[in-house]
Amino acid sequence: MSTGAYRRAGVDLEAAEEATTLIRDLARAVSGPEVVGGIGGFAGLYRLDETRLLAAATDGVGTKLEIARLAGRLDTVGIDLVAMCANDVVCTGARPLFFLDYIAVGQVVPEEVAGIVAGVAEGCRRAGCALLGGETAEHPGVLEAGRFDLAGFCVGLVEEAELLGPRRVEEGDAVIGLRSSGLHSNGFSLVRQAVDGVDMHAVPEGLHRPLVEELLEPTLIYVPAILEAAGRGLIHAAAHVTGGGLTENLPRALPEGLGAEVDLDAWEAPPVFSFIQGASGASPDEMRRTFNMGIGMTLVVPAGADGEVTELASAHGFEAVRIGTVDAGEGVRFA
Amino acid sequence: MSTGAYRRAGVDLEAAEEATTLIRDLARAVSGPEVVGGIGGFAGLYRLDETRLLAAATDGVGTKLEIARLAGRLDTVGIDLVAMCANDVVCTGARPLFFLDYIAVGQVVPEEVAGIVAGVAEGCRRAGCALLGGETAEHPGVLEAGRFDLAGFCVGLVEEAELLGPRRVEEGDAVIGLRSSGLHSNGFSLVRQAVDGVDMHAVPEGLHRPLVEELLEPTLIYVPAILEAAGRGLIHAAAHVTGGGLTENLPRALPEGLGAEVDLDAWEAPPVFSFIQGASGASPDEMRRTFNMGIGMTLVVPAGADGEVTELASAHGFEAVRIGTVDAGEGVRFA
Repeated sequence: MSTGAYRRAGVDLEAAEEATTLIRDLARAVSGPEVVGGIGGFAGLYRLDETRLLAAATDGVGTKLEIARLAGRLDTVGIDLVAMCANDVVCTGARPLFFLDYIAVGQVVPEEVAGIVAGVAEGCRRAGCALLGGETAEHPGVLEAGRFDLAGFCVGLVEEAELLGPRRVEEGDAVIGLRSSGLHSNGFSLVRQAVDGVDMHAVPEGLHRPLVEELLEPTLIYVPAILEAAGRGLIHAAAHVTGGGLTENLPRALPEGLGAEVDLDAWEAPPVFSFIQGASGASPDEMRRTFNMGIGMTLVVPAGADGEVTELASAHGFEAVRIGTVDAGEGVRFA
Repeated sequence: MSTGAYRRAGVDLEAAEEATTLIRDLARAVSGPEVVGGIGGFAGLYRLDETRLLAAATDGVGTKLEIARLAGRLDTVGIDLVAMCANDVVCTGARPLFFLDYIAVGQVVPEEVAGIVAGVAEGCRRAGCALLGGETAEHPGVLEAGRFDLAGFCVGLVEEAELLGPRRVEEGDAVIGLRSSGLHSNGFSLVRQAVDGVDMHAVPEGLHRPLVEELLEPTLIYVPAILEAAGRGLIHAAAHVTGGGLTENLPRALPEGLGAEVDLDAWEAPPVFSFIQGASGASPDEMRRTFNMGIGMTLVVPAGADGEVTELASAHGFEAVRIGTVDAGEGVRFA
């Protein structure tokens, strides 16, 4: 794996990979027969009864928080937080039931915490789930005043018969991409390095609004569109495009032995990605392994269903485009 | 509320209170009819179907992590993390089903992350739940290398008919205390201030082992004992004694109009609390509002059931002692 610029930005993907392997073994040792499929899917699956599974995911917003902190705009990162978790949960076909947040702060400033939670509440509204609880932890001396971190947890419910995933996918299936709103919540260690010293309130060449707005644009929450399409039997599998980009996330929706060819001409990456690439010096391959490049969610759908799915997504306000086809090749190939 | 020494240690309880109120209003706006009882109980309750509820809680380990980091001993804080969440969930009577962890690190060192998760896995074993998933987030430039934070998330299941809580509690009920293993995971901002400059590897006067071992002793997980006692109908309500101590947590198990008198002579606080009190200059009242003072869990049980509960707890390896009685007074009064 090429880690070039991203490793220079301080994120060590190989170490993360090694940690993941160690963790997987530890988790396996405390997972009973109720745990379905092990760690690795977009959400953990737990058998609730004979016909239903709970799906649960946890995630953070990464160092996008640093941009929000520096800009003094805390009201949207909560949307990102819910998005990161709820988009993962819905990839299993599960309807998100509820969400909890964990907020660590150097010092509790009630208005700041409330601002963050207002974003979380808005995210829950968009995901159609309840905000069931949360914890605000004050860590004086560990986090500086003004610094904070967020973790989110989302639990959903799915009938086992309606579970989405690789085992449904067939050669010839269409790959639909749902457009992202921009960077979403991944790759921000690289972003922060790229924009270091740049005036956040100026409009960079090629962009149409101040950099800070571009960077803080909240992650889209695709839940209602996916649930409706899944309910109509139009989806085989879904992949939330987060860290690792299309390159690493789309394969998570595919079974062994199948890959996908993705047509890079099918959509245009929003200008923020060219800007980041120019400023960071990352290679095209690295960009595609780090960012969503304009596609925030991929749906693998039966051949011929792409038109209906595209229309349905559009009715929910999401721009959808067919970006590829499942084939007998290996991994994701860009053409 | 007296915040004396604790505010000096950097934790502003009034600000936390104000933030909580703001958050409660925001959460209420996105809670549907499935959310039972609102925020404020030990766990959020979500109606799964006509007879069953899901109970969910999130928490962290606070700045106990700093002690672990400085001591280079990361293998037990995961137990604390599960304890903080699973002990909350079981206060509703729910059986913990699964747990997820979120680990934020300045830099991923696979062995360190695996060490933390090994503790989490051990905690899950003790709580009888599955480790369903987790996220390790690398925050270079935000957290220094070697620094980390943990958040945990636990989901349990309970029959509505078996829900524990204040509405079951009656005047004359006995209050049983289950002994803690020491500080557990609260009040560490005050602890850290108190032990600043003290040799962590020496045995302080009055203690029987090196300070670091005393401070890092993992939080007890009371889940199996409570589930068995609840299953036998021996518990009306339970209160996990965390930040706020007995003073603030025991009332969470009591209905409006009822309080409890607690006999401070019923048990002896472990010596670590005298040590912290001496080193921090905190008042006895403040100590009781900050620390568990030797009682990590309280069970409110029917009058006359205290003997059976005490025996049952003992069979599970927990020392139990009757510490008080529910009466028509207000709040918790220490005698």
